[in-house]
Amino acid sequence: MLAESDLPRAVRIREVGPRDGFQNEPEIIPTSEKVRLIDLLARTGVRRLEVTSFVRPDVIPQLADAAEVLAAVDIPQDVAISVLIPNERGLDNALALLDRHPGPRRAFDEINVFLSASETHNAKNVNRTVEESLVGLEAVLPRAAAAGLRCEAVVATSFGCPYEGRVESARVLEIANRLAAAGAQEIAFGDTTGMANPRQVGAFIATALARLGGTEVTAHFHNTRGQGLANVLAALDAGCTSFESSFGELGGCPVPVGATGNIATEDLVSMLHEMGVGTGIDLDLLLAAADEVRTVLGRSLGSHTLVAGPVRWS
Amino acid sequence: MLAESDLPRAVRIREVGPRDGFQNEPEIIPTSEKVRLIDLLARTGVRRLEVTSFVRPDVIPQLADAAEVLAAVDIPQDVAISVLIPNERGLDNALALLDRHPGPRRAFDEINVFLSASETHNAKNVNRTVEESLVGLEAVLPRAAAAGLRCEAVVATSFGCPYEGRVESARVLEIANRLAAAGAQEIAFGDTTGMANPRQVGAFIATALARLGGTEVTAHFHNTRGQGLANVLAALDAGCTSFESSFGELGGCPVPVGATGNIATEDLVSMLHEMGVGTGIDLDLLLAAADEVRTVLGRSLGSHTLVAGPVRWS
Repeated sequence: MLAESDLPRAVRIREVGPRDGFQNEPEIIPTSEKVRLIDLLARTGVRRLEVTSFVRPDVIPQLADAAEVLAAVDIPQDVAISVLIPNERGLDNALALLDRHPGPRRAFDEINVFLSASETHNAKNVNRTVEESLVGLEAVLPRAAAAGLRCEAVVATSFGCPYEGRVESARVLEIANRLAAAGAQEIAFGDTTGMANPRQVGAFIATALARLGGTEVTAHFHNTRGQGLANVLAALDAGCTSFESSFGELGGCPVPVGATGNIATEDLVSMLHEMGVGTGIDLDLLLAAADEVRTVLGRSLGSHTLVAGPVRWS
Repeated sequence: MLAESDLPRAVRIREVGPRDGFQNEPEIIPTSEKVRLIDLLARTGVRRLEVTSFVRPDVIPQLADAAEVLAAVDIPQDVAISVLIPNERGLDNALALLDRHPGPRRAFDEINVFLSASETHNAKNVNRTVEESLVGLEAVLPRAAAAGLRCEAVVATSFGCPYEGRVESARVLEIANRLAAAGAQEIAFGDTTGMANPRQVGAFIATALARLGGTEVTAHFHNTRGQGLANVLAALDAGCTSFESSFGELGGCPVPVGATGNIATEDLVSMLHEMGVGTGIDLDLLLAAADEVRTVLGRSLGSHTLVAGPVRWS
């Protein structure tokens, strides 16, 4: 029973809003505003921050300013900066930037690569078969590791595909093992369109933790059908101690149309702190950052705690 | 662990939108529209439906048409109709209506009485001390039972009070025991302003089930901070098999200002069905009813599944 279970004393959270969130905004956010928001996030106590991506600017113009953003942000040394790398070309560009980046710290510390576990989603997303993606990433990961970068790999549609329906757990774990063998130190399992349920999550995460040995297992849930935090609870209960989320509940997959995206970091942190699970994040500072992005975007966001405020016990 | 736990095969859900939801709308919904929406809900497979209340019409004008609504709805015999009763005067009016109600079935089958576990919330809500409320309900419940009505009692602020902070579980259970002794066959514990967390819920529900013997224990969660379904999961895991929710995520307490209310019945049913827990409800019919209330209200609602649609596995 949850009340008696040994929930972890603390978990790791990666804030992905500046990449996953900003890239899904219909209007491009000015670089200076991005930098201001990222610097606010970097001072909330979060220790992992996905800042931008090296996708082709004609494909995702929202993140075409990756180099400018990385040059301008002021992020403390103890916050790991990660960037999303789509393929070898993206890695080339990222490594070139790393070489020419001045300043007291590296431009970024981690890369985040991705593919989908289901063929149809992967084809629509990157126009490759899953095998082709795997072969590409098996070239990317060792080069990134050789450059001293920590590597995370995200397996999208791990809990279901909006085009194909069920995705076999055995296939997801086979993909994860290939990525781990190629050098990924962390595998994130993405519930890309919010199809996961807590029972499924509990079983899957327990198996993944058992099968992936020393590789960090991260859960990346979406709140598409309101079950995001229930899935977090199931993952926690199964032993997961690493999560990804987005301030303001920004981002996520626009399938189904109109659906909300990632779980809100504020809601995640609120629940964890209320349960006595530490995150290192100052919820009030995080809410201030989410309030700023709400102002920048000029619309209400999906985050609940941003509206209601944190629980006050006295 | 959740994946291995014996989740129940089925749970009971009471749809409270027509009372808890409609009373919180700033614009009064026309009686004919209420009746149409209630009749839709009554054909979704839900077996418990809170239809209206007998509060003073000057206090809650939104539900001043209680008698007209009860006279006009067409609800199958196997759907238990409940009405909210605030006090003895409300019971007098409800029993008078019951006596004069024509037609093939009674006007209602259950009453729902309420108080808050915390003094300040109870004073602001009904202008009584908790003890005064208890004494009043100890008069109401036996009279209702004598009229052949099933009695539910809701204990608001069971998991925290927005004015006082922590509410002692021992006090909540003491109140629940008084209500059970007075004839309540079901006690609902309300997380009135969404302060509960899953760890707290798991511990509380387990204790309540152990202490309340043959009395049905119902969980009534709000999604104020996005944790509504996580709290459902914790309650389920602790053995709870009865829940209350509202179609469209209507209703709930307007404290904090702007906060969302009850958990959405669609989101609850989606999660339960995906986990293999039966509800008797046809999710597509429920979504159709929620879509209708969205049209009547002319605004977007908090329900996630209403936007995203149900999970389709093929």
